[in-house]
Amino acid sequence: MQDLDSAGITEAVLAQMADTPDARLREIADAAVRHLHDFAREVNLKPDEWLAGIAFMTAVGQACTPYRQEFILLSDVLGLSRLVNVMHDVTGREAAGTETSLLGPFFREQAPKIALGDSIAKIGQGEEIMIFGQVTDAAGKGVPGAQVDVWQTDAEGAYDLQAHDPTVMDMRGQFRCDAEGRFRFRTVRPLGYMIPMDGPVGDLINRQHRHGYRPAHIHFLISAPEYRELVTALYFADDEHVDSDTVFGVSRSLVISPAVGVEGAPDPAVPSIRYDFCLSRETEEGGGRVGSDPSKLMPASG
Amino acid sequence: MQDLDSAGITEAVLAQMADTPDARLREIADAAVRHLHDFAREVNLKPDEWLAGIAFMTAVGQACTPYRQEFILLSDVLGLSRLVNVMHDVTGREAAGTETSLLGPFFREQAPKIALGDSIAKIGQGEEIMIFGQVTDAAGKGVPGAQVDVWQTDAEGAYDLQAHDPTVMDMRGQFRCDAEGRFRFRTVRPLGYMIPMDGPVGDLINRQHRHGYRPAHIHFLISAPEYRELVTALYFADDEHVDSDTVFGVSRSLVISPAVGVEGAPDPAVPSIRYDFCLSRETEEGGGRVGSDPSKLMPASG
Repeated sequence: MQDLDSAGITEAVLAQMADTPDARLREIADAAVRHLHDFAREVNLKPDEWLAGIAFMTAVGQACTPYRQEFILLSDVLGLSRLVNVMHDVTGREAAGTETSLLGPFFREQAPKIALGDSIAKIGQGEEIMIFGQVTDAAGKGVPGAQVDVWQTDAEGAYDLQAHDPTVMDMRGQFRCDAEGRFRFRTVRPLGYMIPMDGPVGDLINRQHRHGYRPAHIHFLISAPEYRELVTALYFADDEHVDSDTVFGVSRSLVISPAVGVEGAPDPAVPSIRYDFCLSRETEEGGGRVGSDPSKLMPASG
Repeated sequence: MQDLDSAGITEAVLAQMADTPDARLREIADAAVRHLHDFAREVNLKPDEWLAGIAFMTAVGQACTPYRQEFILLSDVLGLSRLVNVMHDVTGREAAGTETSLLGPFFREQAPKIALGDSIAKIGQGEEIMIFGQVTDAAGKGVPGAQVDVWQTDAEGAYDLQAHDPTVMDMRGQFRCDAEGRFRFRTVRPLGYMIPMDGPVGDLINRQHRHGYRPAHIHFLISAPEYRELVTALYFADDEHVDSDTVFGVSRSLVISPAVGVEGAPDPAVPSIRYDFCLSRETEEGGGRVGSDPSKLMPASG
């Protein structure tokens, strides 16, 4: 029997976990325990603070539904999602690819399929814009038939999942590029928005005196056989929060401005954005994507 | 706009949290983000691993009910609860007090009141034992009328909260010591038990090839005006897991063995334990207790 002091506890926990057969789980759990204990020791965490932390984590878990992923939101506002993204970008793929951004908690599988040139705004109203370009490989060659998922808020800053009936899909679509990797679609200009503030993560943001806004953006998930799936987003340059995104998703290379008269625009009358996406080949096992359909992350009931 | 590398993300998050008015929240959140990011960088956390972590935390949160606190259980099996306890023991109180142990997830407020000498086993059957002793201050002087909460598993290793009807209380009681701080009560010998293994924390314990057992024990929560609340437990020496508690709760000074013929035993025919508990005065603000009634930790619905 050990009489454990504060450092000895960490050693005792690591010893109990030392027989974990899955070496990667052992490595991750070992590091998680060491950093968790280091955190508690650094701040000399008091029992009532520990209890507040337990209550907070419980509230975050209880706020999750098939339509809302509060733990992804927490990961986002603490910068963890962006960090995992950035580490993923610099390992295991060709260097040339488009920068990634956060998938966020509003991606849904099985979005409506649209034809090239169609609009993803079926219900949403607003200023029409068009986005066109080409999906290429690292050498600039078009990737034929690349699959694109696109989703965004409407002109009031709401995703379909936040609307009155979250089973209805709008402001999202799925299409295939043509034989040269070219694509075009219409939409309405999205509005920036506050992250959902009616849950425990919103409470934290308020207590931290953060504004809680994300700049206006359009999400993309682009895939093709033999390439790493690209999860990214394009951000509107004139949004007042483009430099202070609450979830740290913006990179300079992903900032865009729609304009009339863009060369090659399919419809010269409509403000347009040309953006070419570059897919990169995996050079080692990819490791998946940062994000998921919220409904996939709910534990099986029972 | 920043183009953030993996270290720059941490700085950007700390900068966004820098205006937090509550200095202690700022200190804790700052440390939490730094250690969280250090953890992710150390293991080079992959997107699919991040996603598995999100799913795990979500499952832990969803497993919480008014009768079950899976996040406290997670804190327990990772040694965090014990660590917070030990740090709390060495700060802000007189040094002489009884060592503390984990409150655990099965404490309930408003346990049935019993008279001195009564049994807390109303339904539970088993080998009867008696526990008696004195609650004293650091100088060994009895603390008159100290309030004692006691709770334990039954002879099958189950708490009342794990029984078919969790609204019925058994194997727990509340009483006041006499004018000299003396107490005595009867109970049945508890059985050691596995922590609840049917949830995500149990899955983790299985994947880590840990046995999941806690040695048999009886919980105590003892309070009196002007003293720090004492949360502790007594552990049975002959339990095979007394040296490998899954939640790291055992200290040498808390290990006991019931026997017949103990000096001063109120009923010489019953195997008895004499244990004197020592309360210590707070020398600074206490900071609460490590644990809570699970129902108090559920977020308000709606």
